[in-house]
Amino acid sequence: MAAWETYLNDHKDRFVSELVEFLRIPSISSLPDHAPDVQEAAEWVETRMKSAGIESVRIIPTEGHPVVYGDWLHAPDKPTVLIYGHFDTQPVDPLELWDNPPFEPTIKGGRIYARGATDDKGNLFIPIIVTEALLKAEGTLPVNLKFLFEGQEEIGSPQLPNFIRAEKDLLACDLILSADGGQWGEDQPAVILGTRGLSPVLIEVWGPDHDLHSGTYGGTIANPIHAMTQILTSMHDQEGRVTVDGFYDDVLPLSDEERTQLNRVPFDEAKYLDETGSVSLFGEPGFTSHERAWSRPTLEINGIYGGFQGEGLKTVLPSRANAKISCRLVTDQDPIKIADRLETHVKKVTPPGVKVTVIKPENRAIPYLVPATDPGIWISASVLRDLYGKEPYYIRMGATIPVNALFFQLLGIYTVIFSFGLQDECQHSPNEFFRLSSYERGQKAYGMLLKRLGKEFRP
Amino acid sequence: MAAWETYLNDHKDRFVSELVEFLRIPSISSLPDHAPDVQEAAEWVETRMKSAGIESVRIIPTEGHPVVYGDWLHAPDKPTVLIYGHFDTQPVDPLELWDNPPFEPTIKGGRIYARGATDDKGNLFIPIIVTEALLKAEGTLPVNLKFLFEGQEEIGSPQLPNFIRAEKDLLACDLILSADGGQWGEDQPAVILGTRGLSPVLIEVWGPDHDLHSGTYGGTIANPIHAMTQILTSMHDQEGRVTVDGFYDDVLPLSDEERTQLNRVPFDEAKYLDETGSVSLFGEPGFTSHERAWSRPTLEINGIYGGFQGEGLKTVLPSRANAKISCRLVTDQDPIKIADRLETHVKKVTPPGVKVTVIKPENRAIPYLVPATDPGIWISASVLRDLYGKEPYYIRMGATIPVNALFFQLLGIYTVIFSFGLQDECQHSPNEFFRLSSYERGQKAYGMLLKRLGKEFRP
Repeated sequence: MAAWETYLNDHKDRFVSELVEFLRIPSISSLPDHAPDVQEAAEWVETRMKSAGIESVRIIPTEGHPVVYGDWLHAPDKPTVLIYGHFDTQPVDPLELWDNPPFEPTIKGGRIYARGATDDKGNLFIPIIVTEALLKAEGTLPVNLKFLFEGQEEIGSPQLPNFIRAEKDLLACDLILSADGGQWGEDQPAVILGTRGLSPVLIEVWGPDHDLHSGTYGGTIANPIHAMTQILTSMHDQEGRVTVDGFYDDVLPLSDEERTQLNRVPFDEAKYLDETGSVSLFGEPGFTSHERAWSRPTLEINGIYGGFQGEGLKTVLPSRANAKISCRLVTDQDPIKIADRLETHVKKVTPPGVKVTVIKPENRAIPYLVPATDPGIWISASVLRDLYGKEPYYIRMGATIPVNALFFQLLGIYTVIFSFGLQDECQHSPNEFFRLSSYERGQKAYGMLLKRLGKEFRP
Repeated sequence: MAAWETYLNDHKDRFVSELVEFLRIPSISSLPDHAPDVQEAAEWVETRMKSAGIESVRIIPTEGHPVVYGDWLHAPDKPTVLIYGHFDTQPVDPLELWDNPPFEPTIKGGRIYARGATDDKGNLFIPIIVTEALLKAEGTLPVNLKFLFEGQEEIGSPQLPNFIRAEKDLLACDLILSADGGQWGEDQPAVILGTRGLSPVLIEVWGPDHDLHSGTYGGTIANPIHAMTQILTSMHDQEGRVTVDGFYDDVLPLSDEERTQLNRVPFDEAKYLDETGSVSLFGEPGFTSHERAWSRPTLEINGIYGGFQGEGLKTVLPSRANAKISCRLVTDQDPIKIADRLETHVKKVTPPGVKVTVIKPENRAIPYLVPATDPGIWISASVLRDLYGKEPYYIRMGATIPVNALFFQLLGIYTVIFSFGLQDECQHSPNEFFRLSSYERGQKAYGMLLKRLGKEFRP
């Protein structure tokens, strides 16, 4: 066992106690009352980074919740690695579904239960611990390190883009590791190569300026719900392909190798249908479910409403109909261009007799994809292979993690998601937990990865 | 001036005071707390009918609000006319928009303001007054009369069909006059030949059994809103024709004469658009707006909802989508058959990946159409012509009045709508009123009509 591993082992219990301390802080970023707690979490991280031997540690305020920065830059000719994580948490409701209070961490059966345990305090703390272990055991680090921890991830990081733009030099690096993400299973590692982008569009169709009697007026005036259903139906063909002009134009097609990689990941159709309560799979022809969810863009209507929605009947010819749409995007689709194309489509297909408004909210996200050939990827994959004794899956996520694309867009640097939570750990839900085995494995993994990056990574 | 007219004139003020008394009773049929008031209104009508000289007067209980029956059957060889009206009212809210309390009748500028003034207490009271006038002035009536006044019209007359079925013999007659309806304008009479029927259908589309993350699952599972919009869009063509198989099969086409009649009624497009706040007219090609609203069936989506409907965005793949539909029907369409055809259509067009439920609520109504050649119609038309000095319009209503079709279905007798409210009198709204000029004109009209029916009506 290397000295740094021995160090980790010797201080194992303290690292758990410290995590408990960290988890006690109710740093819920979405609730204004908890802003002081988010600040307290930032201070906790700041103090702990200092005691680990990290330098230049400081809290940097933004117009919202703060970020914490620190670095250790004494490895000349070695790559500089930026490590990202977040110390804010989701709210806790519904509180009554928690077995223990969400900010009174409870250890049971090898798991630590608390809000933020797996998302993302446990994972964020791992690289700090490993830095301490390496510095204490070896007096040096195998790479230059920068740390960027934020307190606003759970509210969409509103001030982060401006912060990154302003601090480009401070954040300059060769590779980014994200401690926010997860692994496939207890026995199966995975490398996440991509996340989908997001482009939301809201549609309002305006008919008469007030609800009308459907008997008196029905048949003479356009019904905005009819118009809305026509508009929405025109966006897909019968088989589920998006028919908005140019929607797929910029999609980078899957290579044969990528297809093979994605479909190496087992897909249990019966289990999938059972989990979702769906009667059958459905989606764009010519693609498997993994390919559809991970590598193809979608256009989903997230909500629709118009006219009378109460119990029973009310025979109105309604004044208005609304729909909320979001597109999940893949490389190289541009969220603004897609929203514009949707708007053009809506205007083109809107039937006579109604007015239409298309709103393009700014909470967009760029799709993110790192090539499997990226050195950060294959080095992290080799660590996972050694650690689990298994070839990792090369997967993507259907969901959106804006920060990875943001780093690539603003710093020109790929992010390797290197994190050890598992899907079943109730992120964002009651009884969130983190496995202590994952906590320890993560520490070992980060140590191995930093070592290997120091030896093998040539930017 | 005939003796009965002199009588009406001599007792004019008393008839207004009595109407005020009648309007004081808050007989709101939809509110259980007001059930005793509905009963009190029935008793008021009972007493007043007796004092008018009407015989066999009695309150007949139903499982809901009661009906009041009475008759005068001493005109051998003369037709028997049943007069219909209702003594219940709509609720009063929003109360704050009333200038005077809704059950404290106020006379101002030749109008009597109160809930129920025009709909339908003022109109119901007219034939009672006229019967009194004829009996007092002439000691006899020109026809046999039966009176059927109900206390549940404003809640859809739930017990009336069973009552009529059970009392067929009691209600047997040659012609029905309905005191529930209205006239075209102060200077323009109208004969209402038809009302549309109603067939409601509710659709529920079921996708996954809970809302899913649209990133994780989007593209692999059918979205029930997409399915719903497909289903709904398939029910009309681009121009507004209903495309449900067999929808128009039983529609009795307009004759050339009927078309001419309907289109003799002026239609002011600019005013219509201004009143409704619509950008343009829209509807089934080949028909005018009057024809569309009065003589053609429609299928309107009255409401739709599914997925996230709050402020902003929530990127769900929703579990469910709902739509509320009602079809307005014309002779000879059958509401049950139409609902069945809609159900068949929905099942046929439902795309894969979702389940669908079609609910066919029982609040259906049969369309009603009386031929313009019916003697009741042309006799009433001739009265209106004499009274207004103008040829009446021959119109239909786009709305539904179930009782007329019910009488035709159960008693085989046509109803002549003979009533004197005007469109602007705020039925169902705050500040409902009835013009005292209409009240007097109605009395004269009923007197003339009964006289003329006695002379000219041969069943």
